[in-house]
Amino acid sequence: AQSSVTMFGVVDAGISYYSVKSRSFGLTPPREVTQSQKVLSSSGYNSSRFGFRGTEDLGGGLAASFWLEAPVANDSGASGIANFGRRSTVSLSGPFGEIRLGRDYTASFWNDAVFDPFGVNGVGTNLIAVVNSNLAASRALATGGLLGGGLSAGTDSYLRTSNAVSYFLPSGLAGFYGQVQYALHENVDVSTALAGTSERGRYMGGRLGWTDGKADVALGYGESTLVSTLPGGEKIKSLNIGGSYDFGVAKVLGEWSRVRDVRDGTAALPIRLTDRYDGLVAGVNVPVGPGVIRASLARVNFKNGNGLPDSDASVNKLALGYVHHLSKRTALYASVARIRVRNGHNNPTVMGVTPLVLSLPAILPQPAYVSTGGMEPRSSYGYDFGLRHAF
Amino acid sequence: AQSSVTMFGVVDAGISYYSVKSRSFGLTPPREVTQSQKVLSSSGYNSSRFGFRGTEDLGGGLAASFWLEAPVANDSGASGIANFGRRSTVSLSGPFGEIRLGRDYTASFWNDAVFDPFGVNGVGTNLIAVVNSNLAASRALATGGLLGGGLSAGTDSYLRTSNAVSYFLPSGLAGFYGQVQYALHENVDVSTALAGTSERGRYMGGRLGWTDGKADVALGYGESTLVSTLPGGEKIKSLNIGGSYDFGVAKVLGEWSRVRDVRDGTAALPIRLTDRYDGLVAGVNVPVGPGVIRASLARVNFKNGNGLPDSDASVNKLALGYVHHLSKRTALYASVARIRVRNGHNNPTVMGVTPLVLSLPAILPQPAYVSTGGMEPRSSYGYDFGLRHAF
Amino acid sequence: AQSSVTMFGVVDAGISYYSVKSRSFGLTPPREVTQSQKVLSSSGYNSSRFGFRGTEDLGGGLAASFWLEAPVANDSGASGIANFGRRSTVSLSGPFGEIRLGRDYTASFWNDAVFDPFGVNGVGTNLIAVVNSNLAASRALATGGLLGGGLSAGTDSYLRTSNAVSYFLPSGLAGFYGQVQYALHENVDVSTALAGTSERGRYMGGRLGWTDGKADVALGYGESTLVSTLPGGEKIKSLNIGGSYDFGVAKVLGEWSRVRDVRDGTAALPIRLTDRYDGLVAGVNVPVGPGVIRASLARVNFKNGNGLPDSDASVNKLALGYVHHLSKRTALYASVARIRVRNGHNNPTVMGVTPLVLSLPAILPQPAYVSTGGMEPRSSYGYDFGLRHAF
Repeated sequence: AQSSVTMFGVVDAGISYYSVKSRSFGLTPPREVTQSQKVLSSSGYNSSRFGFRGTEDLGGGLAASFWLEAPVANDSGASGIANFGRRSTVSLSGPFGEIRLGRDYTASFWNDAVFDPFGVNGVGTNLIAVVNSNLAASRALATGGLLGGGLSAGTDSYLRTSNAVSYFLPSGLAGFYGQVQYALHENVDVSTALAGTSERGRYMGGRLGWTDGKADVALGYGESTLVSTLPGGEKIKSLNIGGSYDFGVAKVLGEWSRVRDVRDGTAALPIRLTDRYDGLVAGVNVPVGPGVIRASLARVNFKNGNGLPDSDASVNKLALGYVHHLSKRTALYASVARIRVRNGHNNPTVMGVTPLVLSLPAILPQPAYVSTGGMEPRSSYGYDFGLRHAF
Repeated sequence: AQSSVTMFGVVDAGISYYSVKSRSFGLTPPREVTQSQKVLSSSGYNSSRFGFRGTEDLGGGLAASFWLEAPVANDSGASGIANFGRRSTVSLSGPFGEIRLGRDYTASFWNDAVFDPFGVNGVGTNLIAVVNSNLAASRALATGGLLGGGLSAGTDSYLRTSNAVSYFLPSGLAGFYGQVQYALHENVDVSTALAGTSERGRYMGGRLGWTDGKADVALGYGESTLVSTLPGGEKIKSLNIGGSYDFGVAKVLGEWSRVRDVRDGTAALPIRLTDRYDGLVAGVNVPVGPGVIRASLARVNFKNGNGLPDSDASVNKLALGYVHHLSKRTALYASVARIRVRNGHNNPTVMGVTPLVLSLPAILPQPAYVSTGGMEPRSSYGYDFGLRHAF
Repeated sequence: AQSSVTMFGVVDAGISYYSVKSRSFGLTPPREVTQSQKVLSSSGYNSSRFGFRGTEDLGGGLAASFWLEAPVANDSGASGIANFGRRSTVSLSGPFGEIRLGRDYTASFWNDAVFDPFGVNGVGTNLIAVVNSNLAASRALATGGLLGGGLSAGTDSYLRTSNAVSYFLPSGLAGFYGQVQYALHENVDVSTALAGTSERGRYMGGRLGWTDGKADVALGYGESTLVSTLPGGEKIKSLNIGGSYDFGVAKVLGEWSRVRDVRDGTAALPIRLTDRYDGLVAGVNVPVGPGVIRASLARVNFKNGNGLPDSDASVNKLALGYVHHLSKRTALYASVARIRVRNGHNNPTVMGVTPLVLSLPAILPQPAYVSTGGMEPRSSYGYDFGLRHAF
């Protein structure tokens, strides 16, 4: 029994500061509001978590394994092992690869985390990931509520998806790796329903990469269905490519992403509108003794599907940080980030990104821009310093 | 510390399909609706769970032990170790037997699970258990809400009960085994209340069995109080007997059950009505190499307490399956089941059993029969195929 | 991985009885109501819990450690490891002492638990702790809701606090020990808000003690902010001192506590009112073979800030118990307690203490005094007998 279970986890806590500035547009005299907050934060460098996993050798190269991993809110203790929202899977693997069943990261998410020096933690969080999770959460809410029961702060099916069947390539394919993934929508089909069966909640995606240890490059694609019944069909389609190269003295990383929110229009106006979010990230990790300096520059452009003049927006982000490793498991870290929003009154829910949040501010409490009464998102700033302990 | 705790569990996932057919009665032309659903299911062969247990030898034959076991929704990760709804007990045991305190299976439930080839998992789930859990959940809802806080999907005090004191016979009694169990209702007695203290939530039961390793037979009885204050007293009384014999080439199993829902009537009409649910199950397990073929036939008759002509109903179920053991801990399985309902418009809430569900469909999402607008439950069909990994 | 995590916990269950008597005041003829309840209780001797902890030696006297501890409701299984509300911290320690981040006991709580033979468990629970937790919960509810999300049954920031930064003295200071603690309020500052930033939820406290193994004495102080914006500012300020001396044949324990609820008044009546709760406890532990006899006497006086004649109240408590150790980890216990309330119609929410409850009865179900319709709290009585198993 016990020998077959490994416990693992991260407890990461620190002091963080978030400041968000909103400004009036087209008003005289101009107005400005700044909101700020100082908190005991968790997950500033790595996501706090607690998990159980194990593998059984079945002979003949076959193995069965399980992985149950819970998010932990260690600043307040408010969530323990209440759900296995980070991952809950059972797998059968062998020379053919791996079949994995359950909740897991989506195939199209990985590049957003892997090819950014800050991953998706703390104020330095990958800007593309912030925009994508805002989009996923806001469109899910607009079309019937958060997917996946609101687990992972409402980021289904962007960051993770439930009810998935995945196939992973085996290792030993000359450096190639990859997966395909299908998540069942689980909706009930009623024989007398005219509108057809809703496919809301379905996700399909794949990822293919190659690495030789120094170079690493991967392509990801995914489709998340929000509405399939007519009228008003809506899908979010994500395409991204990322890469990194380790020069020894420094590791450079980069990613390009295009996410399309494709809406089929209403019965009254059956015109397909496609909003587009194009993102670019460049980053570097520089080892310095037992530590690493991290830096990233990112930009996301919003191209409004309505095609009207001046209906677009853009965000720029600069993040700097240092991680001091006390051991392989324990580190002290400090990060600082600055974000600027252009034309933030266009699409503030998605483009009004705050220093940290991996979904709508309404879900993860943190100051949000004021975007009512003639105000628009303008800039934000934040820092973390803390202690990460893994076990 | 750690050496005294054993972790154990099951992660079971698969693809399941459920289809439920409803038909009009007494209408021309007849109408029919079929509802179906394909899902990534959990617990198709064994209930997914995570638990901790341990035993301390106190010397002199005495031992103290604990058992904390949580249900796990591994298809979606939605529930982790949020509650110990499967079992949470502390025990003192010795030559005298075992005193056990806490939440546990009821004494009267065991035979429904043990003497059926499919137990209470997947589409093959014991038919008597499905009827009994529907009855327990629907009568609890009708008389004030789910017992036990809705843990175990609302099956208290049928399947499990909280706040129980149990005594178990010691081993070494020439093959005899058994238990008695009393669950406290915990309601507040108010000295000035005229109606007396409510005993809602109280459970009393017992079980006595005998085995020689090949033959196994057991008798169970239990009473669950829903209403004790007047008028409208209501108790569910369960009696069942089950047995199995292992011929080596095959193991045969069978169970007979009589459950009575005894209602004392209202102030206006103080007549005792007793609904009766009589069930019969026969099954067989046939080992085939590293696998086992499973089959069961079951029938439950509903005898309406009102005694009116044509107010009864019945259900028949056929289930077939195969389990392929990759190891002691890991198995692949496939099951298929078919259910037919006769006179389903009488008591559809209890008798409209679907392939899987161990309580009201409203609690565990799964297609339910349409039983409004002149429709009645008619037949259902489902299958599971999946992977069970225990640790 | 696994080797760095230790699991630990307590499963404690028993039979408990609570009886609470309310009486009319100023009515003829007098009326009386008694409410009583018999339950399968948990945590009668030690709080049922499940935790994970670990320490990593970083070299040079430095260490990193984590501690995640959940309350467990083992009588009903209703709560598993749903939250780490008992403690969730990460620490860096060394010759300088320990920096600890996260949720933990408050510095000012410790003396209430340590210097009482019954600690804060079961019917013998420290009377000062009962009054203080009633005060914390009722004032939090009156000023905007429970702090800390209602974790620990609404006792934040009395018993525990979230979002805390603590510093602990190192060992080896000639028997001196202590800590200072600051919990961030985490509220958002808005640049245009006139009333200032709310500091509700902030806690500051400290504790300093000395022990030589036989004698132990400690002083604690803490301030919890409920309202900081004007008008209506409110803080709860706690001061306490406790001590114990182990004579071998018996250990004597005692505590003095003064808690002030300081309210700045309303805009209409800006007069500072300070309610005062002065408590005194004396107790003794007498070893008898493998067991311990426990006894305590306690009194808390409520001094109403309004200064009106006859607006005060007081409570007296007597508790007796015996713990029989079957091993270091397993014990049988029995306790009985009696409480009398004088002038309970003054401040019944806080001073109407029931045998057990560590916060308002509305939060932990248990009979509460009737304090409406001319009734007042008068006396209560309760007992526990049970089994505590630690692992």
